Amino acid sequence: MSYDRTQVKAYAAHASSEPLVPTLIERRDVGANDVLIAIEFAGICHSDIHTVRGDWGRQPYPVVPGHEIVGIVAEVGSGVTRHRVGDRVGVGCLVNSCRTCVNCEAGNEHFCLNGAVGTYAATDRDGTTTQGGYSTHVVVDEHFALSVPDGLDPAAAAPLLCAGITTYSPLRHWNAGPGRKVAVVGLGGLGHMGVKLAHAMGAEVTVLSQSLKKQEDAARLGADHYYATSDPATFDVLAGSFDLVLNTVSASIDADAYLRLLAVDGALVNVGAPPAPFSVAAMSLIYGRHTFAGSMIGGIPETQEMLDFCAEHGIGADIEMIAADGINEAYERVLASDVRYRFVIDAATLA
Amino acid sequence: MSYDRTQVKAYAAHASSEPLVPTLIERRDVGANDVLIAIEFAGICHSDIHTVRGDWGRQPYPVVPGHEIVGIVAEVGSGVTRHRVGDRVGVGCLVNSCRTCVNCEAGNEHFCLNGAVGTYAATDRDGTTTQGGYSTHVVVDEHFALSVPDGLDPAAAAPLLCAGITTYSPLRHWNAGPGRKVAVVGLGGLGHMGVKLAHAMGAEVTVLSQSLKKQEDAARLGADHYYATSDPATFDVLAGSFDLVLNTVSASIDADAYLRLLAVDGALVNVGAPPAPFSVAAMSLIYGRHTFAGSMIGGIPETQEMLDFCAEHGIGADIEMIAADGINEAYERVLASDVRYRFVIDAATLA
Repeated sequence: MSYDRTQVKAYAAHASSEPLVPTLIERRDVGANDVLIAIEFAGICHSDIHTVRGDWGRQPYPVVPGHEIVGIVAEVGSGVTRHRVGDRVGVGCLVNSCRTCVNCEAGNEHFCLNGAVGTYAATDRDGTTTQGGYSTHVVVDEHFALSVPDGLDPAAAAPLLCAGITTYSPLRHWNAGPGRKVAVVGLGGLGHMGVKLAHAMGAEVTVLSQSLKKQEDAARLGADHYYATSDPATFDVLAGSFDLVLNTVSASIDADAYLRLLAVDGALVNVGAPPAPFSVAAMSLIYGRHTFAGSMIGGIPETQEMLDFCAEHGIGADIEMIAADGINEAYERVLASDVRYRFVIDAATLA
Repeated sequence: MSYDRTQVKAYAAHASSEPLVPTLIERRDVGANDVLIAIEFAGICHSDIHTVRGDWGRQPYPVVPGHEIVGIVAEVGSGVTRHRVGDRVGVGCLVNSCRTCVNCEAGNEHFCLNGAVGTYAATDRDGTTTQGGYSTHVVVDEHFALSVPDGLDPAAAAPLLCAGITTYSPLRHWNAGPGRKVAVVGLGGLGHMGVKLAHAMGAEVTVLSQSLKKQEDAARLGADHYYATSDPATFDVLAGSFDLVLNTVSASIDADAYLRLLAVDGALVNVGAPPAPFSVAAMSLIYGRHTFAGSMIGGIPETQEMLDFCAEHGIGADIEMIAADGINEAYERVLASDVRYRFVIDAATLA
């Protein structure tokens, strides 16, 4: 496939109220430390929709979303050592950071003290605006390109770059594993990955979903138990049960009710970000030495660790593949929670 | 000293609006697993005042407060193995629990699933009402009597049984130690113990106090740094600094402002319990993978560990000794924050 860096095919939103349409964008020259990636697949994350629709503030339109990217290295800069032409790589939510601050040095590039650069709609360190993965090609510093192990289905691997690491990181940090009881709140794109990963780590997994509708899915994904949060009895039956409750729901929750589900030294960890603040009673924390925490994606080393873990355990996202011209319809279905569990764009349909 | 279990001298509140007055109370017979303790010293904890004044609900008056007790074993039951007559022992906030639930078995008697029994104003498992340490004698199950090591000054050790373990437990749990930056919010009875303990554990300790008034004290107690929270610049200067912020203040705080002081993976831990719920923005938790947590005293094994640690490091509370007839005046001074840092009643003045 011919590649002209000034004429790269993509789907972009041109305003918060407009659908995404085919667009030509420019990619930068392949610098010494850059790789050019021919994109194969790009997942659709709920935050793509929030961003292009302006829910999170003004955006530098046109915006090409997409931070769950898998593709093949098509060209490498003279200084590149980690990847070779032909390698399958992934790009997640980050494409740059200062690389020198204490957080970057610790592998927490997502918390770069000088500002991590998001994969789209962000200002890169050279002043240009980043454009994401709903596109045929992308150029990134090799440090931010992850190796996608051979064992992974590349389309099902794309959502791992955001939904996968977002759930993997807190599960690892709060020690999901054998002998530990983990609840996953919400069974959407994030939640279904949380269930698969916690199960593969050896934890006893409970799904807490609004209704009983997804009970069969949950069992198939690896859940041991399933309760409906719309039934108030759930909160009595499960009181004091869990070492970790991973909340993947971005709507407001009654934090005290969920904290009451924790065993001594248990943690309720939010990976969503509802706009209104949580209300938390001191006694919900003090009694049982409970932790209320948050977690946001993960750094580059941990993202690689997650991909390797998924390859080892045969884990990918459950996906529904779409063509690029189905993006707008897919957005409506995501908003209606009508996807099990992630849309992935076949980038071949962009070319 | 003669001992008549039906005529034990104590100071009690007879109503929420009344001062404490000399009273005679009954102690139970020394059972097979009980020890009779001739009390030497009893600390005055802020929660004693909350309880007797009815701030925490109806109380079973008369109430003899006091859960920071040190004394000498005067008699032991036939089945007692841990303590001998003449041993110096301490009693903290707990005098009973079921001993068989998962939390008790794990040494977390304070989180007993069948209800831990507080040292005063609580209903014991035999249906009687517990009476605390502002008294000449107390009878407790040997399991809830801690060994006070020889190296500790017994009067300065009394406050360790509540203020000591309340701060020791979260400092240990959240890994205060060499290379870790710990802030202690509030320099009162709890805070001054937090500073001493965190310093002894090897952490770099910062005091965050409302004003600069206690700066010299803080340095003497072991703090490396001191900032006034009344100065808004403090929250900018210290942003992202701490691995652990131990909040000993029971008044409401701006949780988001304190969460912003945490480094990546840092924890803000409350040991006080303000009546109003905290308001916490999701981003305060998610960005930096921050923990907002609580901690409440500690179990019996950890309380013993704390006493041993304090003996090893020569740590006691900074105390002001008073006679029993000074209790009411001491209460007023505690409420006015006019104590550095703990009042301790000399039980000899009760006899």
